[in-house]
Amino acid sequence: MSLSPLLQELISSLRALPGVGPKSAQRMALHLLERDRAGALALAASLESAVERIGECERCRNLSEQALCSICDDGTRDRHVVCVLESPVDLMAVEQTGGFNGVYFVLKGHLSPIDGIGPDELGLDRLFALVEAGDVTELILATNPTVEGEATAHYIAEQLEDSDVNITRIAHGVPVGGELEFVDGGTLAHAFAGRRSLRRGADD
Amino acid sequence: MSLSPLLQELISSLRALPGVGPKSAQRMALHLLERDRAGALALAASLESAVERIGECERCRNLSEQALCSICDDGTRDRHVVCVLESPVDLMAVEQTGGFNGVYFVLKGHLSPIDGIGPDELGLDRLFALVEAGDVTELILATNPTVEGEATAHYIAEQLEDSDVNITRIAHGVPVGGELEFVDGGTLAHAFAGRRSLRRGADD
Ligand SMILES: [Zn+2]
Ligand SMILES: [Zn+2]
Repeated sequence: MSLSPLLQELISSLRALPGVGPKSAQRMALHLLERDRAGALALAASLESAVERIGECERCRNLSEQALCSICDDGTRDRHVVCVLESPVDLMAVEQTGGFNGVYFVLKGHLSPIDGIGPDELGLDRLFALVEAGDVTELILATNPTVEGEATAHYIAEQLEDSDVNITRIAHGVPVGGELEFVDGGTLAHAFAGRRSLRRGADD
Repeated sequence: MSLSPLLQELISSLRALPGVGPKSAQRMALHLLERDRAGALALAASLESAVERIGECERCRNLSEQALCSICDDGTRDRHVVCVLESPVDLMAVEQTGGFNGVYFVLKGHLSPIDGIGPDELGLDRLFALVEAGDVTELILATNPTVEGEATAHYIAEQLEDSDVNITRIAHGVPVGGELEFVDGGTLAHAFAGRRSLRRGADD
């Protein structure tokens, strides 16, 4: 088929979006060009400034355009309770439940020796330093309930064995083998309420 | 929820894409920022150059970054046969069948007096001028098989009653009430092969 080269290029660039196949990319490109050129330009501008200016929060590794993200920077949040998550998507899912008022630490992954992802890649030194600084009373391990997520949670609990922070793991409601981001808000809120300690012969 | 303002802006800009709701927009934004910043920048650049440089072909109104689109500019296409379509999406659908070697005329809509869309808005003067210039032997009316598409086809046929161009309408296979762009290639090829004349007491 003979398409305008720029149109062809736009269609293939749209495929960078997750879940967008060749047919949807084509419809998106034509929709923007035929009906919403202003929207296309606004999207281009947003993409550019987001990529250019969004880095990570120096305290919790959440996506942020400031040194501290809006959660770490929020004086009403309880800094004594830190929820450890695998990704910013999970953070959003927890925030959307509205039931958590602590702060976060985003690992951006889970331990995976095969892929070369160890404690350093997850920023665990920063997490441990945070705990050792002494103002954390509870660490909620909310990694995904997958094999890797569980292993990561247990590794963290093990490393902090000698500190006196209370270490909990979210438990009830999150389906085993599932991903946090696909769990509905009610279930997630439940999982938080039902968290249990990983210390001193916890019942697993 | 307290999100980075730039991230929030990116999520809402992504909703300009057809079929993208709040949840998918969020996943797309995070995917790009976490895993494919190069893809995000490439998409931004493609959007900008497409909007800036893609206009319409001066002959057929197809999307084109040149004065003449690649189809009108292709010496191997048969300029005596002109297929009239409602939109560039339909043009792509027909091109993808690979069974049509003529050229196109894109109306960019259909007659709709309520919305103020009359013959001028569809560029019909240019279509009629093309026919009157005398080098068109067949005009295939491939507007959608909807009430408006049929009305538009009949209006065109009526206006050209006194010319001696052969006017046909695609017929078999396209489901009534459907949209050309969702019809599979085989069905569309069939519809082209089974086209019938709209002149001299055609059998409708
Ligand atoms: Zn932060
Ligand atoms: Zn053209």
